[in-house]
Amino acid sequence: MKDIQIYKNELDYSYVLGAYATFELLAVRPEQITQVFVHSAYKDIIQLQVLCNERSIALTQNDRVFKRLSQKENSFVIGQFSKYISRLSDTQPHVVLVNPNDMGNLGTIIRTLAGVGITNLAIITPGADYWNPKVVRASMGALFRLNIETFTSFDEYQHHFETHEIYPFMIDGDIELGPNNIPYSKKYSLVFGNEATGLPESFRRVGTSVQILQSNMIDSYNLAVSVGIGTFLFAQANR
Amino acid sequence: MKDIQIYKNELDYSYVLGAYATFELLAVRPEQITQVFVHSAYKDIIQLQVLCNERSIALTQNDRVFKRLSQKENSFVIGQFSKYISRLSDTQPHVVLVNPNDMGNLGTIIRTLAGVGITNLAIITPGADYWNPKVVRASMGALFRLNIETFTSFDEYQHHFETHEIYPFMIDGDIELGPNNIPYSKKYSLVFGNEATGLPESFRRVGTSVQILQSNMIDSYNLAVSVGIGTFLFAQANR
Repeated sequence: MKDIQIYKNELDYSYVLGAYATFELLAVRPEQITQVFVHSAYKDIIQLQVLCNERSIALTQNDRVFKRLSQKENSFVIGQFSKYISRLSDTQPHVVLVNPNDMGNLGTIIRTLAGVGITNLAIITPGADYWNPKVVRASMGALFRLNIETFTSFDEYQHHFETHEIYPFMIDGDIELGPNNIPYSKKYSLVFGNEATGLPESFRRVGTSVQILQSNMIDSYNLAVSVGIGTFLFAQANR
Repeated sequence: MKDIQIYKNELDYSYVLGAYATFELLAVRPEQITQVFVHSAYKDIIQLQVLCNERSIALTQNDRVFKRLSQKENSFVIGQFSKYISRLSDTQPHVVLVNPNDMGNLGTIIRTLAGVGITNLAIITPGADYWNPKVVRASMGALFRLNIETFTSFDEYQHHFETHEIYPFMIDGDIELGPNNIPYSKKYSLVFGNEATGLPESFRRVGTSVQILQSNMIDSYNLAVSVGIGTFLFAQANR
């Protein structure tokens, strides 16, 4: 137990909480798993044992680990995994999040991107730490399906991916997205600002700004909802 | 202070936490507000004083109230309001949530509905208490813009609104929604299941089931994201 540390940004490993997300990790990136813990109340242990045995991963039943690492919600399986480096594909569409702040939102967005089939996510720092177990959990393990890369500025991102067509999402963007009005682009980069502030005005000049129509009853949509609507429309129209 | 109770479902009043949402309440349903509290650290007190004076609403500076009622996030303004009854319009589109469980999701959904302009929400109980301050806060005050009504079963809801066209959202729904494939309907009722279980199979028979296309990398979208995509498409196509 002495080496079971509560997650911190500086660690080179993190945890995935919950059976569903741990099975995702076992399926997609088994080489990253260092050990798996199971709670005595977990019922489907046999399937977990088989998978861990096949991959020579240590499986330990230890309820105290759950007291130490579990967050508000109950989980009965925890996977410890080594962080890894992934690079964005230059030939596929991207989503860029500029300074995302909320870990739950970030996880939900990652789950959404896997759903619409956009598997490359750039995060402009400072922003939420995507390895945090709260993000991994909110992503339902979809995090392991994506290439995620951080950049210290949007300029740095753009310098690496000069041929992507940039679509910044802004409240008063030039193009009103709708079922009959979605730009045609095979290699797009959809850019979303921070929860509280959105994108600075300067983004209007880096590409074709777009907006998701909203009534005057709200200030803005929740960020994860905006990303859901925007990415669904682009992905569907450019299949 | 003795009458400042922490929120409970049984109370006939609730609280709105945060300046933005309190201003929404003051703007939309001022007659429901019983009193407003302001923290000594709040800076824009003059505008708040003017609005409360105009409406003869007691405004009290009292930091202890915030310690007692504030949740994780900081807020500097709290409004206490009486719960009220609202009825769904029979002539406008509806969203129906069957047993929604998560208060944050429910608030985000309410904010989304105000954004897309669907202002009638049915909740089939049991489900999260929409008056809970967590829901009000996550809605950013948009809750006060909507008609919200609870029903003890979907049958009871349908009995009241027999002429609405029902579209249950199901993982394997009969119609795949997309930019070029949205049912035409002036009076629709979009039905979404619970976060964990979705809608039971029986819903396939109560209307035209629809699905939001998703990759095989995820089990389902987050409920608030599904509602965002689904309502945006229907509202845009049926303007």
